[in-house]
Amino acid sequence: MVLADRLAHWSEAADALTCTYLSAAHRSVAAEIRGRMDEAGLATKIDVAANVVGRYASDDPRAPTLILASHYDTVRNAGKYDGRLGVLVALVVVEHLQRLGRKLPFHLEVIAFSEEEGVRFSSSFLGSSAVAGRFDPRLLERRDADGITLAAAMAEAGLDPAGIPALARRREELVGYLEVHIEQGPVLLEAGLAVGIVSAIAGTVRCMVTISGTAGHAGTVPMARRHDAAAAAAELVLYVEKRCAQAPTLVGTVGQLAVPNGAINIIPGRCELSLDIRAADDSTRDAAVFDVMREIGRIAEKRGVIIESREVQRTAAVRCSPRLQSVLADAVARAGVKPCYLPSGAGHDAMMFDGITDIAMLFVRCGNGGVSHSPREIITAEDADIAARVILDTVLRLAETS
Amino acid sequence: MVLADRLAHWSEAADALTCTYLSAAHRSVAAEIRGRMDEAGLATKIDVAANVVGRYASDDPRAPTLILASHYDTVRNAGKYDGRLGVLVALVVVEHLQRLGRKLPFHLEVIAFSEEEGVRFSSSFLGSSAVAGRFDPRLLERRDADGITLAAAMAEAGLDPAGIPALARRREELVGYLEVHIEQGPVLLEAGLAVGIVSAIAGTVRCMVTISGTAGHAGTVPMARRHDAAAAAAELVLYVEKRCAQAPTLVGTVGQLAVPNGAINIIPGRCELSLDIRAADDSTRDAAVFDVMREIGRIAEKRGVIIESREVQRTAAVRCSPRLQSVLADAVARAGVKPCYLPSGAGHDAMMFDGITDIAMLFVRCGNGGVSHSPREIITAEDADIAARVILDTVLRLAETS
Repeated sequence: MVLADRLAHWSEAADALTCTYLSAAHRSVAAEIRGRMDEAGLATKIDVAANVVGRYASDDPRAPTLILASHYDTVRNAGKYDGRLGVLVALVVVEHLQRLGRKLPFHLEVIAFSEEEGVRFSSSFLGSSAVAGRFDPRLLERRDADGITLAAAMAEAGLDPAGIPALARRREELVGYLEVHIEQGPVLLEAGLAVGIVSAIAGTVRCMVTISGTAGHAGTVPMARRHDAAAAAAELVLYVEKRCAQAPTLVGTVGQLAVPNGAINIIPGRCELSLDIRAADDSTRDAAVFDVMREIGRIAEKRGVIIESREVQRTAAVRCSPRLQSVLADAVARAGVKPCYLPSGAGHDAMMFDGITDIAMLFVRCGNGGVSHSPREIITAEDADIAARVILDTVLRLAETS
Repeated sequence: MVLADRLAHWSEAADALTCTYLSAAHRSVAAEIRGRMDEAGLATKIDVAANVVGRYASDDPRAPTLILASHYDTVRNAGKYDGRLGVLVALVVVEHLQRLGRKLPFHLEVIAFSEEEGVRFSSSFLGSSAVAGRFDPRLLERRDADGITLAAAMAEAGLDPAGIPALARRREELVGYLEVHIEQGPVLLEAGLAVGIVSAIAGTVRCMVTISGTAGHAGTVPMARRHDAAAAAAELVLYVEKRCAQAPTLVGTVGQLAVPNGAINIIPGRCELSLDIRAADDSTRDAAVFDVMREIGRIAEKRGVIIESREVQRTAAVRCSPRLQSVLADAVARAGVKPCYLPSGAGHDAMMFDGITDIAMLFVRCGNGGVSHSPREIITAEDADIAARVILDTVLRLAETS
């Protein structure tokens, strides 16, 4: 908690926490995390993707590796715990193992990924994708808002992208991947539980929808003769809300909604909106997307408007390892918390390791109604402590059984 | 029709018709209209509000006056007939009377009002309010987009605002007020009628509505725990549409609708929208506004959001004179058109004369589906001719009966 406060002092903004990839604040945070890893006696490095890696080595140099990780970049005007909590809990666990002098049958690597939020280059997971061997080299030409390419930003920071492929971990050298993260939602808070076990990370379908109706004078076109693009949009918004309430892990959101150049006395001829539909399993999500598209057709037909929907993103849901979930659940129970399984609606670095190693995530209760991506994001020291105990217990149990 | 084309050549924009108060284009149009009035043998002037006035005098100098009027300013990217059609029809009628040498028991004044659309100074009816004695002198300090006050713009054009009060017509010196205007809607087009008699000019209530919900991560907040401002807005949009379809002259429009700074992955915490509700009589409109406000309360309660509605405009509906409507209807029937009464959802210069003299309006069929405030606005020469015949017939009938 103290370290989270210290890290939050480094920011690109005067009155808010913003820490995007390779900014001065970002590099200061990396150096501070590395210093803390050094103090803990880990073998540390900052890799060419700017990930901070601390290795608590096994006595057997050929032993495989268990990764404990999360990210240290932030969104703009962020909270202090999103991403960083997972790094801090991992550090606390390793420091404790170090103090105990407890050796493990696997290397334990604490990784603070450099980039997960996708703020600066509009691409997420720059850090974890490199370690997972999934970095897309085309992103090197992607530009930030100032026109600086990712390649140029890396060069300026002394990072050589040519070294990225060598960061990739191979399947056979990994035991698994564990990530602690603040929940970013109200489920654990409302259930009265300090931590919860993530069952799956939702897959997302995103679309941009444009509705073209007929503009007209607000006073002169009778209601029955209108082809109002905003009214068509309203019908769609309510359908998405209703349909996505029909399955437990399903959520649907119209986050962007606008009548471009709308005027108080003009019937909207155009309305634009975004669609984001997620579920813990792809079939649940795809069934909802199918129904929404069918409803789009029905609304267009009924109202005499044209509705165009363009899919802009589709990511598959990722299931967490049943084995690791079970070990986590036992540890949660031993920490005196009733095991609760919940899906993650947000994406996480863990997704990058799907198919490469077993993944698992522990969510920590989010205060203030579950607010996320906001300076009002909060956790309690007690909950962070429970998370650390659960991860320590899990690591030790994995050590026993491996 | 030829004159409409000639007037449309004067524009502030290269590729579109825009003619706002006291622009160079606006002054050229005024000069051209005055020239045409001069040719018709009228006694002409451009008054201190920039209205172009042509007087076809009665032999009796003490006779009262019948006003035939509309406006010559336009919206941005306008059609050629909105406002100007009424001026041109009035000119054609007076030219015809002049040719016939027909004298009337009242003066006939053709007035091309300088300002009705409210584009440059965000205030409508600058020209007609002056003639009706309703000009608000506080508007003289109103500034345009370049920071120029109305007073300064008038001074630059050689117009002395001190002369405005003297423009006001007194009740006892008027016979009535007649205005021809393009319908700006699809009613006559769909009814297959060239012209129609305006029964009333709708009164308007306008509100700005702000909905405050709870922003949240689109993936992490279950549907049942959301307080989505856009979904609340959607419910309101559909209610306005449904409620305002329940009475013949009632219309309701949400023309502005936006989630400020909306993001594809964030549940809208705020949504802003505008409300415009009109009807040919105030009680019908007010009943709808009452129900909408009650629905706002219901939505806010049900969804746990805060909805603030601020009324920004309220104008009373204006009934057209039953006597003048009846004379118009007879003339319409004699022109071979079935008399059709329809309300005007849009405001018109005629409203300014409510309570000062009897008012009446004749609508002319609008082509292209009834499109208005657009270069696609169109009428046929045949319909314009019918309108001129109806007005001539009406003037002659009023001459007989006065």
